[in-house]
Amino acid sequence: MIKSKIIMDFDRYRRCGIEEAVMCEFKSIGQINEILLQAGQQQRRLLLTRLRAEKFNALMPELQPQLQFYQECDCALLGALELPTTAATIAIVSGGSSDANVCHEARLTLNYHGINCDLFQDVGVAALWRLQQILPELQNYDLLIAVAGMEAALPTVLAGLTDAPIIAIPTSVGYGVAAGGNVALLSCLASCAGGVMTMNIDNGYGAACAAIKIYRKINKHST
Amino acid sequence: MIKSKIIMDFDRYRRCGIEEAVMCEFKSIGQINEILLQAGQQQRRLLLTRLRAEKFNALMPELQPQLQFYQECDCALLGALELPTTAATIAIVSGGSSDANVCHEARLTLNYHGINCDLFQDVGVAALWRLQQILPELQNYDLLIAVAGMEAALPTVLAGLTDAPIIAIPTSVGYGVAAGGNVALLSCLASCAGGVMTMNIDNGYGAACAAIKIYRKINKHST
Amino acid sequence: MIKSKIIMDFDRYRRCGIEEAVMCEFKSIGQINEILLQAGQQQRRLLLTRLRAEKFNALMPELQPQLQFYQECDCALLGALELPTTAATIAIVSGGSSDANVCHEARLTLNYHGINCDLFQDVGVAALWRLQQILPELQNYDLLIAVAGMEAALPTVLAGLTDAPIIAIPTSVGYGVAAGGNVALLSCLASCAGGVMTMNIDNGYGAACAAIKIYRKINKHST
Amino acid sequence: MIKSKIIMDFDRYRRCGIEEAVMCEFKSIGQINEILLQAGQQQRRLLLTRLRAEKFNALMPELQPQLQFYQECDCALLGALELPTTAATIAIVSGGSSDANVCHEARLTLNYHGINCDLFQDVGVAALWRLQQILPELQNYDLLIAVAGMEAALPTVLAGLTDAPIIAIPTSVGYGVAAGGNVALLSCLASCAGGVMTMNIDNGYGAACAAIKIYRKINKHST
Amino acid sequence: MIKSKIIMDFDRYRRCGIEEAVMCEFKSIGQINEILLQAGQQQRRLLLTRLRAEKFNALMPELQPQLQFYQECDCALLGALELPTTAATIAIVSGGSSDANVCHEARLTLNYHGINCDLFQDVGVAALWRLQQILPELQNYDLLIAVAGMEAALPTVLAGLTDAPIIAIPTSVGYGVAAGGNVALLSCLASCAGGVMTMNIDNGYGAACAAIKIYRKINKHST
Amino acid sequence: MIKSKIIMDFDRYRRCGIEEAVMCEFKSIGQINEILLQAGQQQRRLLLTRLRAEKFNALMPELQPQLQFYQECDCALLGALELPTTAATIAIVSGGSSDANVCHEARLTLNYHGINCDLFQDVGVAALWRLQQILPELQNYDLLIAVAGMEAALPTVLAGLTDAPIIAIPTSVGYGVAAGGNVALLSCLASCAGGVMTMNIDNGYGAACAAIKIYRKINKHST
Amino acid sequence: MIKSKIIMDFDRYRRCGIEEAVMCEFKSIGQINEILLQAGQQQRRLLLTRLRAEKFNALMPELQPQLQFYQECDCALLGALELPTTAATIAIVSGGSSDANVCHEARLTLNYHGINCDLFQDVGVAALWRLQQILPELQNYDLLIAVAGMEAALPTVLAGLTDAPIIAIPTSVGYGVAAGGNVALLSCLASCAGGVMTMNIDNGYGAACAAIKIYRKINKHST
Amino acid sequence: MIKSKIIMDFDRYRRCGIEEAVMCEFKSIGQINEILLQAGQQQRRLLLTRLRAEKFNALMPELQPQLQFYQECDCALLGALELPTTAATIAIVSGGSSDANVCHEARLTLNYHGINCDLFQDVGVAALWRLQQILPELQNYDLLIAVAGMEAALPTVLAGLTDAPIIAIPTSVGYGVAAGGNVALLSCLASCAGGVMTMNIDNGYGAACAAIKIYRKINKHST
Repeated sequence: MIKSKIIMDFDRYRRCGIEEAVMCEFKSIGQINEILLQAGQQQRRLLLTRLRAEKFNALMPELQPQLQFYQECDCALLGALELPTTAATIAIVSGGSSDANVCHEARLTLNYHGINCDLFQDVGVAALWRLQQILPELQNYDLLIAVAGMEAALPTVLAGLTDAPIIAIPTSVGYGVAAGGNVALLSCLASCAGGVMTMNIDNGYGAACAAIKIYRKINKHST
Repeated sequence: MIKSKIIMDFDRYRRCGIEEAVMCEFKSIGQINEILLQAGQQQRRLLLTRLRAEKFNALMPELQPQLQFYQECDCALLGALELPTTAATIAIVSGGSSDANVCHEARLTLNYHGINCDLFQDVGVAALWRLQQILPELQNYDLLIAVAGMEAALPTVLAGLTDAPIIAIPTSVGYGVAAGGNVALLSCLASCAGGVMTMNIDNGYGAACAAIKIYRKINKHST
Repeated sequence: MIKSKIIMDFDRYRRCGIEEAVMCEFKSIGQINEILLQAGQQQRRLLLTRLRAEKFNALMPELQPQLQFYQECDCALLGALELPTTAATIAIVSGGSSDANVCHEARLTLNYHGINCDLFQDVGVAALWRLQQILPELQNYDLLIAVAGMEAALPTVLAGLTDAPIIAIPTSVGYGVAAGGNVALLSCLASCAGGVMTMNIDNGYGAACAAIKIYRKINKHST
Repeated sequence: MIKSKIIMDFDRYRRCGIEEAVMCEFKSIGQINEILLQAGQQQRRLLLTRLRAEKFNALMPELQPQLQFYQECDCALLGALELPTTAATIAIVSGGSSDANVCHEARLTLNYHGINCDLFQDVGVAALWRLQQILPELQNYDLLIAVAGMEAALPTVLAGLTDAPIIAIPTSVGYGVAAGGNVALLSCLASCAGGVMTMNIDNGYGAACAAIKIYRKINKHST
Repeated sequence: MIKSKIIMDFDRYRRCGIEEAVMCEFKSIGQINEILLQAGQQQRRLLLTRLRAEKFNALMPELQPQLQFYQECDCALLGALELPTTAATIAIVSGGSSDANVCHEARLTLNYHGINCDLFQDVGVAALWRLQQILPELQNYDLLIAVAGMEAALPTVLAGLTDAPIIAIPTSVGYGVAAGGNVALLSCLASCAGGVMTMNIDNGYGAACAAIKIYRKINKHST
Repeated sequence: MIKSKIIMDFDRYRRCGIEEAVMCEFKSIGQINEILLQAGQQQRRLLLTRLRAEKFNALMPELQPQLQFYQECDCALLGALELPTTAATIAIVSGGSSDANVCHEARLTLNYHGINCDLFQDVGVAALWRLQQILPELQNYDLLIAVAGMEAALPTVLAGLTDAPIIAIPTSVGYGVAAGGNVALLSCLASCAGGVMTMNIDNGYGAACAAIKIYRKINKHST
Repeated sequence: MIKSKIIMDFDRYRRCGIEEAVMCEFKSIGQINEILLQAGQQQRRLLLTRLRAEKFNALMPELQPQLQFYQECDCALLGALELPTTAATIAIVSGGSSDANVCHEARLTLNYHGINCDLFQDVGVAALWRLQQILPELQNYDLLIAVAGMEAALPTVLAGLTDAPIIAIPTSVGYGVAAGGNVALLSCLASCAGGVMTMNIDNGYGAACAAIKIYRKINKHST
Repeated sequence: MIKSKIIMDFDRYRRCGIEEAVMCEFKSIGQINEILLQAGQQQRRLLLTRLRAEKFNALMPELQPQLQFYQECDCALLGALELPTTAATIAIVSGGSSDANVCHEARLTLNYHGINCDLFQDVGVAALWRLQQILPELQNYDLLIAVAGMEAALPTVLAGLTDAPIIAIPTSVGYGVAAGGNVALLSCLASCAGGVMTMNIDNGYGAACAAIKIYRKINKHST
């Protein structure tokens, strides 16, 4: 007998300050439809991650208009997104434009939780002048999310230059030994600069969740 | 020609808010002596990590009395340690007593930077009641450092139960597949709970550095 | 000279209590046709696992009507399935709905051997309340099959809360370090809770075979 | 502040049917002393595993006489061991005499829980006649614990010849590719014979815990 | 300047007793066409391995009729194949029908060099009776090629039962930990039975080359 | 807010003597279009690497005529290529014709920087006579780029026979253990012959960059 | 109850043509003593491998004089060794003098079975002239055992130059990526030259067993 | 019969421009003695690498005075070392003082071949100001050898800032994921900056050999 099918964790926000989200990569179309219907009935917002365009297009036609699809990061939102208007205190900094989808997943997750952020791309350390140019600006943020593939030296260099905590997201950008992002991951974990904390490869969503929890603690008195 | 020998980074505190520290595991006795002499001449404090008792005992006899050795975590301090008196807003939570040395390395590093913390040990998830017993207390902290070996389920369970950011330190406690801490590391990185950030295996010092940067941002207005 | 081609092991039930089954993933259409014809001639039932819908649809048209295809777990049955009517003493418990196909493969294999089971889904430890809600019910089963991907903390948490043996099936659900199920596997093997036994990744069929052998021993006097 | 130090899980037996045990490999002498004192004050029995002779000899002299040390498996017992008198329904079967310590760890753990077992050694598949000689006897047991290193073919061969569930313990016996037991582990997990469940490398204790849980379910009506 | 393009090693037979063969997996259609034209101009026979049907069909139309394509092992032959008429002294023995393509690659390579062999399939050790049934026959061969995937216990069991040298070919048949054939490979290498020699995964061609060299040495006086 | 999007490093030539190049494998069509437009506006030449034909064909139609596409190595050039007329002092030497695309990527990169090179293919060590035939010619070059897959013995053999520095490029040509090029890579790194320097797998572009820097230093007085 | 302790396989010679041997690395002193006593009582010869000098010296004093210890390969023999007087048809060829212990283990095992062999050392391919000097002589042997560490190019080069089957033994000689012999192993397995068969790392004993089986088949009519 | 024992490659200098050197790590004391005697008889100089002090002290007493031992890099020289007097055109640049032994092995090898070099230590990228301070000086060298452990970002940063070719030596300095130097190695190989060539972990000797070959080509007209 099937005793339970899909149980949403809509209580998560109360416990952890993070809204329920659904990772769609390993779910069937039928399962995602069911989740969306359940969320709709309970009038819940929902963030769907790792949802490829083909899968999005295969969802129930009546569900699609209720969703906002973000092609740049394979995400969708059920419910409206109010863009935050406060100044950004979090910066997302990436090594190259190949890392863009991960950056956007993190950005959308932050925005979905009502938190603003700024995005700096293409400042990898192979051309250090690009990083040095924006360094004074970067030093003003409370938190940096560093996104990098290949040998991922960016988080280390950043950590040595600023007093902000660094959440490093290694990306699966790379080939040969770097294929799949493993070198980037190991490089972040082995960083000899203080204050680098590492996420799973391509985990823009998870980095944003950690950033949200830190943001809330920093701003707890003001909100 | 040898153009440069040992160059301390005493400027690090100004840039990053982290004091210079010296990882001793791969340095010769001669190199550590030289570093200590240099720091002494400049009247600097210094934290020495991964310094085994035998190595400590082999340092220059005149240097030893200037150092405080902490056997529980293979660390030593040059200069005095003023224990912080403010209430702890950071908790270190560990799965088992085998993880004690990593907990103490993190604790000492925080204390060395003037930051207080509380330590909860032996609350691994195999006996969940121990964790549930202290959960209400844990929910009051701004930041949790979760230390666990073996399959390291602790950070995941914690992240699902509190709104604090979690810095996970996988430890090298384990045998067979778990030897060296690799399973614990992968388990933390793969955590399906939001807000877990992972450090290198046994990296109590690095976790504390990240905690310091977060702590300073949370408390920037009050200090 | 080809001395032997395909030799079915229809004697297996007598030796081991397990019916012959055919893993189709690496077999050609021609080979599966031949196996089915051979089984048909000998009036044998047969369970086909890891048979994708496209492969099923490419089998000989006259064979297809004799088969029952189970899309939710890529399996097919030659011969009738009598659903067991005794109360379930085995529970399949899964972390998330992404693991559904593995759960169903285990369930079908049990049912095919005349054994009932109950299925509890979406009780992963990131939202521990879902597990705690069904815990009293779970404590009544003789055997638990715990199915989980990512960091797979579920078997460990279950093993610490019940007196039932736990057969853990790590699943290939996950990305980055967790891709392919390796972290889930290692996490189950490294479990610090007593009584967790681990199967190969996604091996719902094998877990069911082990469960059948245990079930028979538990119920040997009553059957 | 240190909020908690060592917390024993003496409630484990009630929840899971398994007594508290202490894995000593990564604990300091001081920690083991403290654990033993705590258990002594509460008049608890305790099983200590992975305790090398040198470490045992370094414990507090007044504690040593209260312990029974088992050199063949690096274990010690606090409290008396009553050897079970019922006929064995569990057999431990090992490939070679190099696996002896793992066999004895499993045997002691079973005995410590009042469960009898028989031990068959040196029946690896390179000399199949040794296994075939004892096969009729092996087919009478309710449960087999198969212990093997190198390529660990024993669990697979056994699983194809009997109707008992098989708990496989891969051992760290081997060199070259087999060093550390990884090949044995993978071989057990990949077994193409039904009913093999795998433990971590050298985990005799854990295999026994799983066997205890199964044993209790099989014998629940008779005890 | 391109100083050399494709240089065939038609001298190989004189040096090593092995005919030139071409592994097509990583060559472009254009390169294979060029090789075939070159061989044709020099009136050479040629064995093409790892040539998928689609690639074969894309070759120059005038070349295709000169080739014999063997779909069961993705091979093609330029030039005629005279089947050997002497009794087989080499046996190819495989664990399951999923390994068929590797068996056929080895068989074709032997036949192409004028050497006969017999093929026994589906005698994996999970059902040992199948192997025991043909054992007396197997003991008459000079050389056994054992082909197996998953945990690949077959070569070990065979090596303990016969006095023939065993060339083991691990196959890529398997999923989870066994995916890609790595467990099968390691299991063969770690074999505790004497006389097992291991080839790369799926390397039926290479195993046949080794068998040819051994065959020639055994039969050097008679030929 | 998006503070920066795509920032080209057109200053690289001045700093390092290497022209900006764009690795297209992980960039979207939109991003490559944007890069080409930006380069066009600034009248810059640009080398695009790892650009599959399908991706090239999907670029903006008005951009395609400005590009020269090189199918043999999945590269494209924006701007004209003046073939160098000086005698080649660099030789690219490859093991087999399967490695051709990597050779051509290196060759094109050298040519793009105005440097000539000669290409010797199909001289792998399995047929050593082919290498020995061209050895006297090879000994005249200033620098050898050795390209090899599988077990990649070529760089080692070359390094023992000439006084030229060797840049080794392992290729992803191979199957089984050699799949993806890992064995070739490790083999180059472990070379027991002096003077072998290793690049990432398939990194023809990077090898050429290193060769360019060495070439410039060798020829600095003459140019 | 302990149903069986140490069971020697003295029947192995009859089945496989290989004498029983004992791998001592993971056996206790007590176990080796027991094995020797058992063999002595049955008046059996015995080869002991992987027996370090310290372990040998710790055996029962009355046993030591009955053994011949071979320090160059950590082996010992119970019973006399009659050196074979027939001309050698097997050659052991090694890359460097660091591989000597593996060569001697293979040589002793062959001699113990009454088979002669010649040993050629220090002919690694980094200095190809050394190999070419002995090539005409090597081409006269029926079988070559190629022993090499690091990148282990020797078996490949040999296989391309002779018509003898090659048994490759990768050795654990190497550091960095080559530590433990893994690169040598992979390199042998990936060899692109026909006729290379690979053993486990450092497995001189196993290579000799395979050679014995091949030798017997080659010489079956003459003996 | 032992046909050859130790064969020195004193011809190497003529072929490759590199003097014979002996890696002592896996050689016995007896073998090293024999090599030194052979070199002495032929009045050859010899560089011994990876020779631990204990091993050096165990060599034949009459040999020791003929050797110069370099404790800082576990090397010894047979024959005199004439320090080069020309200005250095090669710089060795290292991340931290833990890498000192590798730097000195490279330096000694260069000096032994009559080539000067300068050494810059402790300029890792965690404190970028140290690197920037010496950058103008570094830009004057023909060749940089970059030595770094942990995440090894130094070669990448250097390659983006200078026009010199970079030989990267990853070191085994690190713990956790970085233990053994694997992360450093992968990071160098995956470098996104042009012109980084990678050596095996800790291979200071090999890097120097490559540097010697490059140096000779750069200076061929002047010497």
